[in-house]
Amino acid sequence: MNSYAQSGVDIAAGARATALMASAVRATYGAEVLAGIGAFGGLFDAAALKAMAAPVLVASTDGVGTKTKVAARMGRWDTIGRDLVSHCVNDILVQGARPLFFLDYVASSSLNPEQIAAVVTGAAETCQTVGCALLGGETAEMPGVYQPGEIDLVGTIIGLVERESIIDGSRITPGDAIIGLPSSGLHTNGYSLARRVLDDLDWHEFREDLGGSIGETLLAVHRCYLEPARRLWDGGAAVSGLAHITGGGLIDNLPRILPDGTGAVIRRGSWQVPPVFALIQRLGAVPDDEMFHVFNMGLGMLVVVPPEQAQLALALLPDAAVVGEIVAGSKRVTLAEG
Amino acid sequence: MNSYAQSGVDIAAGARATALMASAVRATYGAEVLAGIGAFGGLFDAAALKAMAAPVLVASTDGVGTKTKVAARMGRWDTIGRDLVSHCVNDILVQGARPLFFLDYVASSSLNPEQIAAVVTGAAETCQTVGCALLGGETAEMPGVYQPGEIDLVGTIIGLVERESIIDGSRITPGDAIIGLPSSGLHTNGYSLARRVLDDLDWHEFREDLGGSIGETLLAVHRCYLEPARRLWDGGAAVSGLAHITGGGLIDNLPRILPDGTGAVIRRGSWQVPPVFALIQRLGAVPDDEMFHVFNMGLGMLVVVPPEQAQLALALLPDAAVVGEIVAGSKRVTLAEG
Repeated sequence: MNSYAQSGVDIAAGARATALMASAVRATYGAEVLAGIGAFGGLFDAAALKAMAAPVLVASTDGVGTKTKVAARMGRWDTIGRDLVSHCVNDILVQGARPLFFLDYVASSSLNPEQIAAVVTGAAETCQTVGCALLGGETAEMPGVYQPGEIDLVGTIIGLVERESIIDGSRITPGDAIIGLPSSGLHTNGYSLARRVLDDLDWHEFREDLGGSIGETLLAVHRCYLEPARRLWDGGAAVSGLAHITGGGLIDNLPRILPDGTGAVIRRGSWQVPPVFALIQRLGAVPDDEMFHVFNMGLGMLVVVPPEQAQLALALLPDAAVVGEIVAGSKRVTLAEG
Repeated sequence: MNSYAQSGVDIAAGARATALMASAVRATYGAEVLAGIGAFGGLFDAAALKAMAAPVLVASTDGVGTKTKVAARMGRWDTIGRDLVSHCVNDILVQGARPLFFLDYVASSSLNPEQIAAVVTGAAETCQTVGCALLGGETAEMPGVYQPGEIDLVGTIIGLVERESIIDGSRITPGDAIIGLPSSGLHTNGYSLARRVLDDLDWHEFREDLGGSIGETLLAVHRCYLEPARRLWDGGAAVSGLAHITGGGLIDNLPRILPDGTGAVIRRGSWQVPPVFALIQRLGAVPDDEMFHVFNMGLGMLVVVPPEQAQLALALLPDAAVVGEIVAGSKRVTLAEG
């Protein structure tokens, strides 16, 4: 006799995970949420869009890459949900959008309800912080697809922007200042390389150079830049472009917002590169080019502003620095010394 | 020296997959899509919502379960993207919503651009058929998380409904007719059990009992019920409730829309159970209860209508049949003989 449980799929475990995370998820619901957990689809009241001049929905799907493997090695499941929400919020705020709602997907070879509840509760708490409803989600048990003990985690965010407030980089011109906002670490990119290089070290012992353990340093939560962006918008700074530095680093992400005829120079030494990147580069003998192509190198978000706006922007962003400028060019980023 | 490629992550392969799928994805863009492939987030013009009385957004995230393993065993990647879109469309149409846009996520241990392009192209083609933009997506390479050769596939759909047109089952009353719409096969549920039971058989040879091979039968594309639902709505049929029969089968899914004080009787023999379910049950000695809890058993969508609407609904849905009725009860589904 065969049963679904014998096939490695435990329907009751899914129900238990849902019960464990339910209160954190419900805490993200504003009055707009008409139906959430348990419904086939989440219902979000969009009546507020009727009062807008030209509402535009902005959507993005992403994962946290093999940062999930770091969580697995450290047995720590409360942070990667936070990473995921921050990443997704950043991906749409670069276009000027504020988050409305978020959906998550967590899958593994066998459902561990406590583990999945920890992941989703983390996501829910960050959703609550940024004022975004966790409107729906799915947990999946995929025996034979995932390696034992590993999970994948996917998030989708939907945000809203007035059409005339969309930031698309089209007003970027040579002479504009590039302002960098610090990252908290690797964020959600470059973990395959980092894990390979650091694999043989002790991830639990305190290290002077990192000011913590390797495990803690690698799990540092992806910084959410919604609050700094709001400060710029509310403070009246004219922002020509925003670039979220994800996979591909500064080198690949800044060109995504550069208009034809422009390029960028980034001045090394104008910001602090966190020590974890130096450690990875030294132990792995990773070339400079590769480092800047894979990691954010300490800059999680770049803000492009007209030169006369740079002082205002810096005043609104206490931990930011001018790290370069827009030049005439062909959508390339050049790294300059000092 | 370490490089990202040596870590098992191939950035160029991701770019190639995107290039291969780009034209199919762009074919899904209507005038509402202001930015798609290449942008941080997809931009969807929501100006049409301003003309609605009370617009409500409906959102759902889902996967196709271990149907991905069937695709892997058969080496056939053009169908599971279609399954995913159909599944997501069905999940929101039960609340009365029409799809606006869709986002996908495809991940594996190592990126095979042709394989991923086939998956996403299939999704794009179904999106185009149902009039839904494939607004965004992500491919991820997760060495060490996924088993070699396996993939996971996740979709998120956003749809729209007028608040007064939301279908939530609250008007369901005892005496209502339950109309069943045929499924095309397993749809996207029960594959772990089906694969286990059928594992040792030849999946390529033609079988009289199935009218095709096991592989073809298991990969039959999840039926999309948007067209039948539109026929009901446009034909003026009063629909009290719609239930998409997914994981948990009739037994768990119909209760999701039943109001307090109601239950349902489903009459076995009132519809054709496809032969693949009989084969699985026989070879696996799977008890009846388990079969109805895991599989859709040939009914992919249930439509609840007041009794006086049943004839109209059946006239609008040529392949449907009355399969049961709503009774007084406590949100339970009872299977009755004949």
